[in-house]
Amino acid sequence: MKRNIAIDILNQTPLEQQQIELVERKCLGHPDSIADGIAESISQALCRNYIDQVGGVLHHNTDQGEVVAGESLPAFGGGKILKPIFILLDGRATKEFNGEKIPAEPIALKAAKDYLRTILPELDFDRDVTMDVRLGTGSTDLRDVFKPEEGTIPRANDTSFGVSFAPFSEIETCVREISSYIDNTLRPKYPAYGQDIKIMGLRQGDAIKLTLCCAMVDRYISSLSEYVDYRSRLQEEATRIAKQCTKRSVEVSINAADCDKECSLFLTVTGTSAEMGDDGSVGRGNRANGLITPHRPMSMEATSGKNPINHIGKIYNLLSSDLAHECVKKVDGLSEIQVRLLSQIGMPIDQPLIASVQIISESGVTLKDIEKDVYEIIDYGLENITSITERVIKGELKTF
Amino acid sequence: MKRNIAIDILNQTPLEQQQIELVERKCLGHPDSIADGIAESISQALCRNYIDQVGGVLHHNTDQGEVVAGESLPAFGGGKILKPIFILLDGRATKEFNGEKIPAEPIALKAAKDYLRTILPELDFDRDVTMDVRLGTGSTDLRDVFKPEEGTIPRANDTSFGVSFAPFSEIETCVREISSYIDNTLRPKYPAYGQDIKIMGLRQGDAIKLTLCCAMVDRYISSLSEYVDYRSRLQEEATRIAKQCTKRSVEVSINAADCDKECSLFLTVTGTSAEMGDDGSVGRGNRANGLITPHRPMSMEATSGKNPINHIGKIYNLLSSDLAHECVKKVDGLSEIQVRLLSQIGMPIDQPLIASVQIISESGVTLKDIEKDVYEIIDYGLENITSITERVIKGELKTF
Amino acid sequence: MKRNIAIDILNQTPLEQQQIELVERKCLGHPDSIADGIAESISQALCRNYIDQVGGVLHHNTDQGEVVAGESLPAFGGGKILKPIFILLDGRATKEFNGEKIPAEPIALKAAKDYLRTILPELDFDRDVTMDVRLGTGSTDLRDVFKPEEGTIPRANDTSFGVSFAPFSEIETCVREISSYIDNTLRPKYPAYGQDIKIMGLRQGDAIKLTLCCAMVDRYISSLSEYVDYRSRLQEEATRIAKQCTKRSVEVSINAADCDKECSLFLTVTGTSAEMGDDGSVGRGNRANGLITPHRPMSMEATSGKNPINHIGKIYNLLSSDLAHECVKKVDGLSEIQVRLLSQIGMPIDQPLIASVQIISESGVTLKDIEKDVYEIIDYGLENITSITERVIKGELKTF
Amino acid sequence: MKRNIAIDILNQTPLEQQQIELVERKCLGHPDSIADGIAESISQALCRNYIDQVGGVLHHNTDQGEVVAGESLPAFGGGKILKPIFILLDGRATKEFNGEKIPAEPIALKAAKDYLRTILPELDFDRDVTMDVRLGTGSTDLRDVFKPEEGTIPRANDTSFGVSFAPFSEIETCVREISSYIDNTLRPKYPAYGQDIKIMGLRQGDAIKLTLCCAMVDRYISSLSEYVDYRSRLQEEATRIAKQCTKRSVEVSINAADCDKECSLFLTVTGTSAEMGDDGSVGRGNRANGLITPHRPMSMEATSGKNPINHIGKIYNLLSSDLAHECVKKVDGLSEIQVRLLSQIGMPIDQPLIASVQIISESGVTLKDIEKDVYEIIDYGLENITSITERVIKGELKTF
Repeated sequence: MKRNIAIDILNQTPLEQQQIELVERKCLGHPDSIADGIAESISQALCRNYIDQVGGVLHHNTDQGEVVAGESLPAFGGGKILKPIFILLDGRATKEFNGEKIPAEPIALKAAKDYLRTILPELDFDRDVTMDVRLGTGSTDLRDVFKPEEGTIPRANDTSFGVSFAPFSEIETCVREISSYIDNTLRPKYPAYGQDIKIMGLRQGDAIKLTLCCAMVDRYISSLSEYVDYRSRLQEEATRIAKQCTKRSVEVSINAADCDKECSLFLTVTGTSAEMGDDGSVGRGNRANGLITPHRPMSMEATSGKNPINHIGKIYNLLSSDLAHECVKKVDGLSEIQVRLLSQIGMPIDQPLIASVQIISESGVTLKDIEKDVYEIIDYGLENITSITERVIKGELKTF
Repeated sequence: MKRNIAIDILNQTPLEQQQIELVERKCLGHPDSIADGIAESISQALCRNYIDQVGGVLHHNTDQGEVVAGESLPAFGGGKILKPIFILLDGRATKEFNGEKIPAEPIALKAAKDYLRTILPELDFDRDVTMDVRLGTGSTDLRDVFKPEEGTIPRANDTSFGVSFAPFSEIETCVREISSYIDNTLRPKYPAYGQDIKIMGLRQGDAIKLTLCCAMVDRYISSLSEYVDYRSRLQEEATRIAKQCTKRSVEVSINAADCDKECSLFLTVTGTSAEMGDDGSVGRGNRANGLITPHRPMSMEATSGKNPINHIGKIYNLLSSDLAHECVKKVDGLSEIQVRLLSQIGMPIDQPLIASVQIISESGVTLKDIEKDVYEIIDYGLENITSITERVIKGELKTF
Repeated sequence: MKRNIAIDILNQTPLEQQQIELVERKCLGHPDSIADGIAESISQALCRNYIDQVGGVLHHNTDQGEVVAGESLPAFGGGKILKPIFILLDGRATKEFNGEKIPAEPIALKAAKDYLRTILPELDFDRDVTMDVRLGTGSTDLRDVFKPEEGTIPRANDTSFGVSFAPFSEIETCVREISSYIDNTLRPKYPAYGQDIKIMGLRQGDAIKLTLCCAMVDRYISSLSEYVDYRSRLQEEATRIAKQCTKRSVEVSINAADCDKECSLFLTVTGTSAEMGDDGSVGRGNRANGLITPHRPMSMEATSGKNPINHIGKIYNLLSSDLAHECVKKVDGLSEIQVRLLSQIGMPIDQPLIASVQIISESGVTLKDIEKDVYEIIDYGLENITSITERVIKGELKTF
Repeated sequence: MKRNIAIDILNQTPLEQQQIELVERKCLGHPDSIADGIAESISQALCRNYIDQVGGVLHHNTDQGEVVAGESLPAFGGGKILKPIFILLDGRATKEFNGEKIPAEPIALKAAKDYLRTILPELDFDRDVTMDVRLGTGSTDLRDVFKPEEGTIPRANDTSFGVSFAPFSEIETCVREISSYIDNTLRPKYPAYGQDIKIMGLRQGDAIKLTLCCAMVDRYISSLSEYVDYRSRLQEEATRIAKQCTKRSVEVSINAADCDKECSLFLTVTGTSAEMGDDGSVGRGNRANGLITPHRPMSMEATSGKNPINHIGKIYNLLSSDLAHECVKKVDGLSEIQVRLLSQIGMPIDQPLIASVQIISESGVTLKDIEKDVYEIIDYGLENITSITERVIKGELKTF
């Protein structure tokens, strides 16, 4: 069956050339990102276990969960957690299939803890965290719709959609690169930089302003002056990285709410504000591409934790992002592209009700010049949509 | 100080004239909306109590919470709840001020239950729901920033933004009106229509397709044929209401996942799918204007439950919506308007870093024609921004 | 089959004539008694529901549960609860039988709340209490043993025993009568007397000392002097009641830990110390006869909440108490009697491994004089053992 | 001040010579013992931490807590946990002292997990257990009474008592020795024997019957026949140990509820029935001497978890046991001794209201023969009562 793919040229100013642009990223240790990461880890662990136990992925959606903040008393040289963080794991999962019992809750607990250990190594799991797990088994209506069959294309769980864009703008790239640089290069060298970082980027014309809120880890910092040094180093490093991504003017400020005199700083014991007041939820932070982009089209769906088989809110968001970037990479003349995939409940997911592609082309480039190439990329992507599922299960795709 | 208000004309096709449009509304009994409504009720109750006890609203943010589904066994004529719904109330609140102890957790519990009683009258509170409350006291950093002072303008809690648009498109109006009609007219007459309704609208060119998932309440329905009658009645009524909102073709389908033969229906004991499998979270459903509009700019912030004093994620979302609609109402020649308000942490909230207004004007209307009027509306709205706070506390503004 | 009933005369000083005697009662509002009362209410509610739904009582044991104290700020004229009491309901129950689903957790919640409302009318259920329910379904081993069959005698769930004695000594009677008088006569007139009362009785020779710790309800008391008046009134009334039960000297002290000067009093908002620091558990308070009697033989089993069909820890404790009192009432010459019933797992409960009766007889009374009468009472009681079950289900027997 | 020590000779048959005797022990992995062990571990950890942080032990009582069973699917060769065990930690503790914040909840969590790891090594903490901690801060009344002062004797927290006896009877010794042998000798060699063992001993005349319910660990047992072998080995070993303790006839039965044909066995994944249906609570199992002895005087107080400074329910139970055994060891002619220590609230704990010693002496031994020696032992013990506290904190005394 021919796919319903509509490609249009928008007569519109690309975001990169508009006056104002805003972008935000909540890095891995932000409470909302913690919730997202746990939710996705649980889904992946369930997938792997389902395959092991029954040879196929069963229905589940663990795109739920709440991180309830604890209380802490950070101090230079090392403070303490006074009240543990509480994490509620919910959502639903299949717990029995063909007479086989599946230990969904123990799997969820294990996945959540394993994940947390990798992103918050300062957290003492024996002291500082409690978890509860309340995985339901889902309502019969929706579950019945879902039947995993080998070789065949799953049917959409819902009438829903996914949306994404490409390429990243300069400021979006700045935010992504700084996040990545801190995680991969800076922190391994300086563990004083915690995992809970919020990066806010604002561009007004050609002036880029980046605001980082970065939790500092108290045990690696002996004094206020050392804290100030760390802040300065981060300011310099972030500025340097940003300047590699843009020719525009860049101003970076770190922990703007700090008041050095009163020693009111963003100092933490574990590297996340979840230790002292900030709760987090699944689906409240970054979109599937790792950013919050209020000037871009966004899906409200929580990508993390949803089942990667037939949940449109997950698959179409990931796929549309892939396709948009693929088009930009392979087709010349695209200033900006938006891809929207709209499903129809009960229909095969490779046959969206409509795949709508909106392009802002470079000067002189017409629809005719690019239509065929773009169509082929979209069509091929849809044909191979189950590779998204496979990559999700292998943990190869980021969801937040 | 003069406010930084930027007004631009966009050279763009209004959404109403674009080929595809998507809109969704999760009505009051949807698990995500339940979570939102509880969160907002708690904030309002805390506000009223703070004023009573200490003469001013204290810091709090209760924009958190999780509704964990129970298990039910619906049956024509009346089924039963097998496992209670569990609701976690979290967020944070000030619990002591000037030596005065504030019973924040009991207030939260009471507010949550009072609210639930109004929207889910079929729910038996003694049997079918359990609640836990874990309100933290917030981190000192952020709390220090917030000092409620009479007569003065509060300072922004964060560098953040609010965004909205006007007017509603035809299909958005359809969705809103149907929701409202069911709640205010249909259900009072036919309690068989539950509160958990999801309305999805898709417009392709001039064809509008509305999909309603409506929980039916089992005790008011004696048989499959009566269920089918109710479904038909809703189909007719929703179609009728929609046709009052648009001249376009309208197709309405109700509970498309029903399978009458296998009696797999959207039947519930209490009117919400939270009873049997669907969890809900704050901030995952409707935006502040009651809709999810993937083709419109949206804020990811949860409006419900945030403190209405200085939390930009609440105030600017509500204000921008107000201002957009005010402009459309009072200024001729506006096809579409988007209002974005961007704050700067620590600065008075009536002085946004920038108030950016983007207008798609009617044919022949220039910026000059409308600039002054729009400016005045925006400026006046910002000057009187604390009236938003007051209306929120009085419960006059909807947040989801 | 002849029952194995052994009757012996003990050559021993009756407790009433020993030098020292100690007795304690935790009244209805004591946290441990709250837990007991809830546990028993749940069991009774389950029994009634099982009978309604499936025509027989199914396996359950709800002799578990924890009352976690809240925080309060009592004040003359009316204080407030700052943090709700949390109550965990656990144990296990049958949730499915012959394809019929039984809503065990909703039943438990409802029973717990209904019970609490009767004993703690000052408690605001919407604000001051949260509950969680985690009823398991039991391990297969034990469950298999239990098969409720009409007309036949259930088989013992365990090798266990029940024990009791009669008659009550003077000081035991004092404690029981005072408790009863406060509940039935004094509080209806003076609601200032809360439900959480601990009565400790110590007899040294012929001197009886009674110590009452009685929670006072703040909203009914306007000042310290009124509090002192209430204390005095209770002291007088308790003394008066005690003197009706004994000719020995009686000294009563009320709230001995009070320090009037510092206004450190036993003042509460709701009438129970569970509001401010005292946790409670099932099975930690009174024995089945309503008393803690360290000089008497006692069973460690929690009578409350156990199933009344085949759980020896419940049935034999209740029956042995009944039988001991029956003997004292009907047979002359008994100074003191102890009845121990020992079961054997899997055997019919009317056939204990041994029913051991130990008697301290009045001077001149021999075994021969009383043996036959006692035997008949014991034998008849065992023959009609299922009437204990019936009376428990009807709520006619107290378990703590 | 001279201590009030009363020593009497009882004219009574020692238990060893009575016709019937019953004794029970719940070994370390029994759900009630798990709860006790956790409670005591928490108290000890708090003590050590208080001393480290503020130089003295602060008020706390963690003699509360609930072990809520999970669900499991044991299988020869290794089964799985389907639903985690949930453990609620409650009680109360001082969380702030002289401006110093004490992380009571994290300490409690850590202590609970460390303890569980030692007794249930098969339990996977990442998968199979969840914990919640809800430690209150206690009511002001009781807390005020307690002031830890160096060199001085603490004052009793309550009017309460402790009681114990010596020596252990033959059957009591059998039970204790078998428990000890399994833990120290048998299990290190055969990890198939789980930690959850209940040993019930019944003596009728000279016939001793011991019933062991021993959880078997599935991963160490490959088949029913191997299970049967393990059961036989335990039967033989227990019989052998028992025969070392008594000349009476001994009959031992293991897992009497097993039904080999239906393969309904006491097989577990982790070695405790808490994995599949049996809840546990603090204070519901063994008394301070490790036994439940319905024919002996017992205290209902939970010894485990209570503060070892001034809580009579802990200190007097431990001390009375120590003193009773000391007397039997050092003074000739004692058949049986019972020691009861009765406190008076607010008085120094070395000055009980009365220390009542009741002795059944050997034939021909008069009060005069033994009175002085016994008095001195009791008096010396009371004088050095704080050594009990010290040994508890060091973990040298067992409490269950």
